[in-house]
Amino acid sequence: MIKTDILIIGAGPTGLFAVFEAGLLKLKCHLIDALPQPGGQCSEIYPKKPIYDIPGFPEILADDLTKNLLEQCKQFEPGFTLGERAETIDKQEDGTFIVTTNKGTKHQAPVVAIAGGLGSFEPRKPLIHNIEYFEDKGVEYFIKDPEKYRNKRVVISGGGDSALDWSIFLSDVASEVTLIHRRNEFRGALDSVEKVQELKNLGKINLITPAEVTGILGDRHVKAVVVSQAEHIPTEFEVECDHFIPLFGLSPKLGPIANWGLEIEKNAIKVNNALDYQTNIPGIFAIGDVNTYPGKLKLILCGFHEATLMCQAAYQIINPGKKYVLKYTTVSGIDGFDGSRKEAPKAVVKAID
Amino acid sequence: MIKTDILIIGAGPTGLFAVFEAGLLKLKCHLIDALPQPGGQCSEIYPKKPIYDIPGFPEILADDLTKNLLEQCKQFEPGFTLGERAETIDKQEDGTFIVTTNKGTKHQAPVVAIAGGLGSFEPRKPLIHNIEYFEDKGVEYFIKDPEKYRNKRVVISGGGDSALDWSIFLSDVASEVTLIHRRNEFRGALDSVEKVQELKNLGKINLITPAEVTGILGDRHVKAVVVSQAEHIPTEFEVECDHFIPLFGLSPKLGPIANWGLEIEKNAIKVNNALDYQTNIPGIFAIGDVNTYPGKLKLILCGFHEATLMCQAAYQIINPGKKYVLKYTTVSGIDGFDGSRKEAPKAVVKAID
Repeated sequence: MIKTDILIIGAGPTGLFAVFEAGLLKLKCHLIDALPQPGGQCSEIYPKKPIYDIPGFPEILADDLTKNLLEQCKQFEPGFTLGERAETIDKQEDGTFIVTTNKGTKHQAPVVAIAGGLGSFEPRKPLIHNIEYFEDKGVEYFIKDPEKYRNKRVVISGGGDSALDWSIFLSDVASEVTLIHRRNEFRGALDSVEKVQELKNLGKINLITPAEVTGILGDRHVKAVVVSQAEHIPTEFEVECDHFIPLFGLSPKLGPIANWGLEIEKNAIKVNNALDYQTNIPGIFAIGDVNTYPGKLKLILCGFHEATLMCQAAYQIINPGKKYVLKYTTVSGIDGFDGSRKEAPKAVVKAID
Repeated sequence: MIKTDILIIGAGPTGLFAVFEAGLLKLKCHLIDALPQPGGQCSEIYPKKPIYDIPGFPEILADDLTKNLLEQCKQFEPGFTLGERAETIDKQEDGTFIVTTNKGTKHQAPVVAIAGGLGSFEPRKPLIHNIEYFEDKGVEYFIKDPEKYRNKRVVISGGGDSALDWSIFLSDVASEVTLIHRRNEFRGALDSVEKVQELKNLGKINLITPAEVTGILGDRHVKAVVVSQAEHIPTEFEVECDHFIPLFGLSPKLGPIANWGLEIEKNAIKVNNALDYQTNIPGIFAIGDVNTYPGKLKLILCGFHEATLMCQAAYQIINPGKKYVLKYTTVSGIDGFDGSRKEAPKAVVKAID
């Protein structure tokens, strides 16, 4: 059982900043995220795209924002349960909550903050009747560890940046990379499209277009995929492989959280924005893109504010009756849980004679 | 008459970020500030101190935050009325407001956003009976243009960073610099204290401590100050000078805004935080440290959020009945009023053959 003060569901920018604000109040956080790394959409969907509306940054790449937020909160030593989806929540008699993931990891905390963004990002799966059978048996929708594919035969399908970039990357790792796309045209960064063209010309990537994977063959593991090519004369053939990786993008789903008894409106969780972004269940808060209230804007900067006010309310729940006096970091500095101390250079009091 | 869409009272971080958010909605802003430069407290009170709780910045100097915010909003070409204090507000028959400063400058806008921080920073004045008579006649509480003091005899009083730093700076400009402080000990950056000691030893700064200026002599202009020294035997003597600059710090005052008919609570303006940070007077908003509501935290990051939601409401007032659809800067880019365009690198659609 992982125990913490504030259990944060979602490790995107709002969740990460909540760790920092909680830390200022001496509260410890643990984050659960379905994605294999922190950063949420910023890291998974558009890491290399600039954001222009983070206050104080005329321009910042989404990936750099994540890095900065991790750096900003690291002294408060957040815990992470990554690559797992928060599945169920159970309120205990002592008022705490136990949240269990799809892999069975259990977490206990007096306060739960849902910072789930647009939901957990679920891969879009191709319509192949037996694809779910082969999940964890050679079919993967994310690439967590590229080394897994060393000297293996890999089939990737998709026509966007992920399919292009992983084909390029794995062409140096796998023994054979086949890229299958239903059109001749790919949509992605110009560099990536040109690089795939070059690797194809060099024979390092097998390209099959326009074509689709319509079947998976194998016994206890993927052995081949069935490819249908419809140009001119419809044909169907097999490509032998060890792994089939469909990269058709991610689609956000509120998922199991929708069944936690929270008031939901337009796929978002209703909160009390007049006070502390608490949901209809006391002790459960919703911050960032996952919540809704009159006038809500799904902007990262709003999540930062919501996280900050939420932490104050969490403090009251965890320390009932204790008054918290706001301290300014510029004046009081920051004491990390790791023993670190940050502070502004102090003024001296010194005589001149 | 200066006309604009949103008239912002206060050019601190919240006011500057409001310019950016308004610009995304194609609304133009003009800012009024009593200080001679934008940045509010960040520039005037603690420019060289680090802030640790701006999201995405593990550490940023207050002055750099101001610079970044100015850079972020410059494409939306804000207007500035600096060194003037918003004094009166008058609602017009057409629903717009006219705001007049203490120097008589008039501004007209359909929406007024008060981003006044802790109030306008008024200098702490020493208790000298005729000091106000000599204001603008040789007594100054701010140094706006150091060149004004070239080859003049200057008396500075105070024992903090401002008094130290300006004594150092003016020792190269003025013909004579006298620093008077009621203690022997100064409170400031170690560097500054040591530099003043060095300049005193070189005879470039006259130091009189422990002492106080208790009178001002002159006719139509300052001619001398009366200095009282209480150590051992009380003595009183005159120091001839052209300028007397008391630098005893600034103290924030809500000032004339307190008489605008707004609901005030604990020296702050009450707003509707459940919707848009509007005050009890429709069309007048209050954002940042100047406002109050249940759970309010006087943090810069909260001002950013409040400014953003305020702009949406301002848009509705200025464009009644028009629906605004939120666009993400990462997706849609930014069109500046100056003709500039910022956007993420576009994906290409390109065949591989």
